[in-house]
Amino acid sequence: MKYSEMSKKELLYEQEKVLHQYNQFKARGLNLDMSRGKPSSGQIEEAIGLLDVINSKSGYKSKDGINCLNYGCPDGLPECKKLFGEILGVQSDKIFVGGNSSLNMMFDYIMQCYTMGASEKNEPWIKQGNIKFLCPVPGYDRHFTICEYLGIEMVNVPMTATGPDMDIVETLVKDPLVKGMFCVPKYSNPTGVTYSDETVRRLAKMEAASDFRIIWDNAYCIHDLFGKEDKLLDMLSECEKAGNPSRAVEFASTSKVSFSGAGVAVLAANEENLAYIKKRYSFQTIGFDKINQLRHVEYFKNLAGVKRHMKSLSEIISPRFEAVLSALEKELAPLDIAEWTKPNGGYFISLDVMPGTAQRVYELCKEGGVKLTNCGATFPYGKDPEDKNIRIAPTFPTVEELADATDLLIICVKLAAIEKLLK
Amino acid sequence: MKYSEMSKKELLYEQEKVLHQYNQFKARGLNLDMSRGKPSSGQIEEAIGLLDVINSKSGYKSKDGINCLNYGCPDGLPECKKLFGEILGVQSDKIFVGGNSSLNMMFDYIMQCYTMGASEKNEPWIKQGNIKFLCPVPGYDRHFTICEYLGIEMVNVPMTATGPDMDIVETLVKDPLVKGMFCVPKYSNPTGVTYSDETVRRLAKMEAASDFRIIWDNAYCIHDLFGKEDKLLDMLSECEKAGNPSRAVEFASTSKVSFSGAGVAVLAANEENLAYIKKRYSFQTIGFDKINQLRHVEYFKNLAGVKRHMKSLSEIISPRFEAVLSALEKELAPLDIAEWTKPNGGYFISLDVMPGTAQRVYELCKEGGVKLTNCGATFPYGKDPEDKNIRIAPTFPTVEELADATDLLIICVKLAAIEKLLK
Repeated sequence: MKYSEMSKKELLYEQEKVLHQYNQFKARGLNLDMSRGKPSSGQIEEAIGLLDVINSKSGYKSKDGINCLNYGCPDGLPECKKLFGEILGVQSDKIFVGGNSSLNMMFDYIMQCYTMGASEKNEPWIKQGNIKFLCPVPGYDRHFTICEYLGIEMVNVPMTATGPDMDIVETLVKDPLVKGMFCVPKYSNPTGVTYSDETVRRLAKMEAASDFRIIWDNAYCIHDLFGKEDKLLDMLSECEKAGNPSRAVEFASTSKVSFSGAGVAVLAANEENLAYIKKRYSFQTIGFDKINQLRHVEYFKNLAGVKRHMKSLSEIISPRFEAVLSALEKELAPLDIAEWTKPNGGYFISLDVMPGTAQRVYELCKEGGVKLTNCGATFPYGKDPEDKNIRIAPTFPTVEELADATDLLIICVKLAAIEKLLK
Repeated sequence: MKYSEMSKKELLYEQEKVLHQYNQFKARGLNLDMSRGKPSSGQIEEAIGLLDVINSKSGYKSKDGINCLNYGCPDGLPECKKLFGEILGVQSDKIFVGGNSSLNMMFDYIMQCYTMGASEKNEPWIKQGNIKFLCPVPGYDRHFTICEYLGIEMVNVPMTATGPDMDIVETLVKDPLVKGMFCVPKYSNPTGVTYSDETVRRLAKMEAASDFRIIWDNAYCIHDLFGKEDKLLDMLSECEKAGNPSRAVEFASTSKVSFSGAGVAVLAANEENLAYIKKRYSFQTIGFDKINQLRHVEYFKNLAGVKRHMKSLSEIISPRFEAVLSALEKELAPLDIAEWTKPNGGYFISLDVMPGTAQRVYELCKEGGVKLTNCGATFPYGKDPEDKNIRIAPTFPTVEELADATDLLIICVKLAAIEKLLK
């Protein structure tokens, strides 16, 4: 029976029952964590062979004879560009290989636009007044904190099942002070939504400032679950076709393919952006770690190798997603007090509880022994305007821990809803 | 006989002789390079065991159980901080471990001061008008290009045998628009000079803007040659003693200890600067490559291990320096047309040829088959005001190549001097 259809008496009865379950849970003294979008040890172990492919006997030269332990080759090894070109579906000459963190590359790129301008022809963003970024919400907190750090005003755009609400985007972007937009276009963090072809095309085509840039954070480009694969159009080609070839810069990494702390990050961009980015990096560093690039190429070999590896990771991750999703379905669906996403890939499930109760759910969970992602983390300035979104990160705990944690979460979602309805 | 004491006739005779040698050299069709401050393959090979210490069987956890392949520990592994603390002679809690490039860390730090201010209390440099950096010359081109990129005006300060001319520094730094200064305090690039205790103390004590920062690039802190070791005072302690605890931030790396392309870089700073830097990095990245930090710690173990390794590198590098220095001594000393440094460590020999002839020497060398560092590279804006400095980088070529290249260089120094004297 839906909570909204219950009488006060029925709700009070339900409250007593759920509170009893809650207290039983609390008595177990659990200490679980569903907050971290972090691979489990099993995932890390799956790529452990990466540590062996380069050693003192294997040699340390690229196939073109580049000494990967010395200076040189600042834009990345050709074979590493090739591999990422295949992964992202772009020509390898559009790839720049960086260090271990795509977030750092996004930060550097935004800083470049901020201090020097988005191109040689544009004024630095910092000199253009109160500039703004569009932020599809819920979204990724570390995108938002870059804007917050630089004092860039963030404007929320609601996510739909096909990506950000494009009617709103097209209206907002007419403001010449809107200079950028963060997008996680595939298996979006945290909704798991993949942008539809129409969304991608509208983003590429819409009218915007010449120095408006889309930060196309393709973090989960090959991170399928359950053997299903969402298809995403290539943003760089769409921008080119639409006559806005410099509009988007794409970022990706192997942080959730090989090792989160020791992977390889890349960006992909059109010729103009790439030349400008390479120039900036030539002032910033002599070059990134090429031996780790070589290590990744030697281990994965090619796209087929990467896909095989991602399949084995999916076998580790999928049961965790299922544990959460099946419990939510069974316990919450009949009550009509919450909605959640059922993604085909990525790292998160996005749970919308009854508006005005997310913070209460967080606190109840914490007291009961389960840490959730901070409420509001999925919104700019940490402010969820409806206080309803909870990001569930199922990868790090074991399946058993997840089952426990989800049970408690469900209890807390119920309790908070009942409290609200009884008010 | 000194060239300056030769008659015109004697000079013409000498010119004919040296030109003959030059043409003989040219006929050999050499293609040598003395321009790159880059380790030789032999140096790289010396650390090749680093590639073996971490593998699938060795494990990948720090001694505190940190999974070095996953996210976390954004300021670096404790044991890596300890090792660098010993190397730099500072407490390990002053160390922040970064990626593979100390240049990148300097760039990030300067960008932090530029966009956000040198501390929470200071205005961003970018908002303070036409700010300036003091640049000891000759110096390191990649320092200068960071300033050039950001439009920071550079003011030359001549190097002396004890470091930058402190009388000039103390005068210039009174200008509140002087916000920074680049220093390579030990085996300075390219002079090889180590700053005297007095220089260090005066830098720490002098009156300067509260947001004036010394970029203490201790790139050659343990890079002794010939079994001699220059001693350098610890800048951070001196700043503290002088009541300017936040004045300097120190940078170093293993780029010329282990691998140039795949080493570990660090910075050291007092509590206030460090907290501010850590905060910035928390917006910029989730963390640097910890497995490479662990690799370095496991391989070198401790300061004694690092020193043993540096001794073996010194045995590779010293003969190269000697090949250059002995030839310069034998051929050029009697002529009194050039001066050069005889460093106890580092990567370079700084050669001052007859004023007004460095560019000519460069061109003659190029035509003769030897590439030198671009003239002016050791000065801001690439402009050597006296056109006299040539940076010799002896590490990369073989001893035989160096002997050949130095012979040609000497011939060219002579030729250019004679041309000038005959004018």
